[in-house]
Amino acid sequence: MTQASRVTGTVRVVGSGLLGASVGLGLSGRGVDVALADASPAAVRLAVDYGAGRMARPDDAPTLIVVAVPPDSVAQVVAAELAAFPAAVVTDVASVKAAPLAELEAAGAALDRYVGSHPLAGRERGGAISARADLFLGRPWVVCPRPGLSRSSVSLVEALALDLGAIPVELDTAAHDDAVALVSHTPQLVATLMARRLTAATDAALSLAGGGLRDVTRVAASEPELWVQILAANAPKVAEILRGYRADLDTVIAALDDVEAPGARRAVAETLAGGNAGVARIPGKHGQDRRFSSIVVLVDDKPGELGRLFGELGELGINIEDLRLEHSPGAEIGIAELAVLPDAQQRAVDDLTARGWRIAG
Amino acid sequence: MTQASRVTGTVRVVGSGLLGASVGLGLSGRGVDVALADASPAAVRLAVDYGAGRMARPDDAPTLIVVAVPPDSVAQVVAAELAAFPAAVVTDVASVKAAPLAELEAAGAALDRYVGSHPLAGRERGGAISARADLFLGRPWVVCPRPGLSRSSVSLVEALALDLGAIPVELDTAAHDDAVALVSHTPQLVATLMARRLTAATDAALSLAGGGLRDVTRVAASEPELWVQILAANAPKVAEILRGYRADLDTVIAALDDVEAPGARRAVAETLAGGNAGVARIPGKHGQDRRFSSIVVLVDDKPGELGRLFGELGELGINIEDLRLEHSPGAEIGIAELAVLPDAQQRAVDDLTARGWRIAG
Repeated sequence: MTQASRVTGTVRVVGSGLLGASVGLGLSGRGVDVALADASPAAVRLAVDYGAGRMARPDDAPTLIVVAVPPDSVAQVVAAELAAFPAAVVTDVASVKAAPLAELEAAGAALDRYVGSHPLAGRERGGAISARADLFLGRPWVVCPRPGLSRSSVSLVEALALDLGAIPVELDTAAHDDAVALVSHTPQLVATLMARRLTAATDAALSLAGGGLRDVTRVAASEPELWVQILAANAPKVAEILRGYRADLDTVIAALDDVEAPGARRAVAETLAGGNAGVARIPGKHGQDRRFSSIVVLVDDKPGELGRLFGELGELGINIEDLRLEHSPGAEIGIAELAVLPDAQQRAVDDLTARGWRIAG
Repeated sequence: MTQASRVTGTVRVVGSGLLGASVGLGLSGRGVDVALADASPAAVRLAVDYGAGRMARPDDAPTLIVVAVPPDSVAQVVAAELAAFPAAVVTDVASVKAAPLAELEAAGAALDRYVGSHPLAGRERGGAISARADLFLGRPWVVCPRPGLSRSSVSLVEALALDLGAIPVELDTAAHDDAVALVSHTPQLVATLMARRLTAATDAALSLAGGGLRDVTRVAASEPELWVQILAANAPKVAEILRGYRADLDTVIAALDDVEAPGARRAVAETLAGGNAGVARIPGKHGQDRRFSSIVVLVDDKPGELGRLFGELGELGINIEDLRLEHSPGAEIGIAELAVLPDAQQRAVDDLTARGWRIAG
C-alpha cells in the first residue's frame, strides 16, 4: 500500500518521542530515507526498533529536517541543525510558534531556511512506544509562512504534511498562537482545574459521575511536564483568555451567591445561552450536526457482544454515521448510541429488535 | 421481551417531558398501567401517541406518583399530588433535592409519603419526542431516605428504579446535592464558560479544534431554561465549588503572568498534576482503565464502511472493549480507535491489515 512520497531525499528527524517517531514511521512507510537523531541514544534505538527509520550518520545530507523536541528545547536545536546542515530546510512541530522564533531571531540564526509548523495531533499520553504512522491522518498541520521565507521552503513542509496524510493550513505565527491558546491551551487548563476539584471528592459523589464529567475532564490526564512548557511558551495569550473566562466566572458566582436578586437568574441564563452559541461554532459532527437519528442499543459487557452488534448492523446494510459508547456504573452492561441516517432509523430499530437486541422504545 | 414489573397498580406520571415520558415508556413496556398528566393537554397527547401511557382519569387510584416537572415547580406539584391522592407514595425526579424538600416542609405537606429521588440520566437536549424506554438503563438512580420515612415507601421508589433498569443508590438529601454540585452542576458551568470564549473566535482558530475542545465543551449545548432552575436550586453548593475553582484559576493566571518568576512553572506543574490525580478518580473505563490496547483504523466516511469494519471484527471474533470515533476536518475520512484486550491486539492488526484496512504502523 506504499504510495510515492512528495518529499524526496533524506529526512532527518531530531527527537524520537511520540511526534518524531510518528513522523518517521509515516515517512518510512512511504519509502522515504529517515535518519533519526536524539539526545538519548536509547530513544533512537527504540524508535529504530519500531520501524521509524535508521540511525542518523555524520555524512547524511538531508533535504528536510524535522525537529520534534520539547518546546523549551526547540530554538536551540533548530539553530544547531540550521548551522550543521546548511543545505537543509528545517521545520519543527512544537505547539507554540512565536516564542521559539523570537529565540532564534535573538540568536541570529539563518532563518531563511526555517519554517515553523505544528501538526494538531497527539494524545493525552505520549512517548515513542505510542507512535503511529497515521497519527497525523486527516488532522490540520499548521505551516507558518513569514515575509522573506521562500515559497519552496514552505511548500516542502506542506509536502511533508501531505505525505503524512495531514491537511496543511497556512497561518502566520501570531494567528497560530492565538488559535491554539483558545482551542487547545485554555481547554486544557479548564479541564485540569475541574479535575482538581475531584481530588477531595467522596466515592459516593464520584459514583454518580456520568459522561458529562468524563468528557469535561478527559484531557486533564495529559502530561504535566510537556504542558508546563507549552503553557509557559504561550503564557500571555493563554492568560488573556483565562482573564475573560474568570470575568464570566465571577458573574456566575455573584449570581449564584444571591440567586433571587433581580437579574441574577437572567445573568446565569445568558451565560448558558452564550455557551450554546459557542459550542455551536465548533466544526464537526459532534458540534452541530443534526443530520442523523439516534438509536440506543443495550449491550452486555462481555466478549463479542459489541462485535456481534456491529457485525449484524453490517449484515443489515445499516451504516453507522457516528457512535458513542457508555459503560454503566455498577452494572455489566454498556449502552451504544448509534447515529444513522433518518430514513434508516426505523428499519434499524425493527431489524435489530427482530434479532433480539434491546432498543429504546 | 416484557418482564414482570416490581411496581404494581397504576403509576401516575405528572409531567410529559423527556424524563416523564421515558418513565412512562419504560413502565408501559413492562405492562404497568401508566396514567399521564401534564399542565399542557397537548404534551400529554403527544406522550400518549409515543406509547408512554394513557391519559390520567379523575378516578385513578395510583399506588405511586412520579412528578417529572421542572425543578422550580416540583414542590408545588408534589404537594398537590400528596393532597389529591392520600394513598399514594409520591416521588420526583428533579436534579436537586434539598430545595424542594425545604419548600414542602414550609408548606406543611404530608411528607411521610414523599420520597425524593433523582435518576442520573438525561441528555443535552430533551423533550417528549426524545423520550426513550431505556433512558435509565444502567444509570444510578439516587433515592433519598429521611428519618421518619417508611422503608416500604423508599423500597417502592427503588422498585421503580429497578423496573426501569436503573441502579438504586441511597444518599441523604444533602449528600446528593453535594455530589451533583461537583459531578454535574460545576462541570456544566465550566464547559459553558469555555464555550462562551468561542463566540468571538475566528474561523481559522475554530478550524484547528480537536477532540479535546469538543469534549470539554460538549455539555455546553444543554438547555439554558432547565439549567437556570437546577443551578438556582443548588446555588450555594455550586458557588462554593466554583470559588475553589477560581482560587486555582487565579494561581494559574498569576503564574502565567510572570512565568519566569521563581515558583511559577512549579505552580502550573502542580496544578496539572492535580488534574491528573482528579481525573484518575473518576470510575469507568475512560477515567482510569489501562487494561486495553489501542488499535487505530482509518475509515472512509462513506456509507457502509464503519459497518463493514465492525462486521469484519465480528467475523474475526475480536471483541471491542471501547472505542472512539473521530471525524477529520476537511477530509472524507474518519478514524476509529478501538480498545481491545492486549493479547488480541496483534492478531487484530494482522487480520485487519490482511483484509485491506489501513492501521497504525
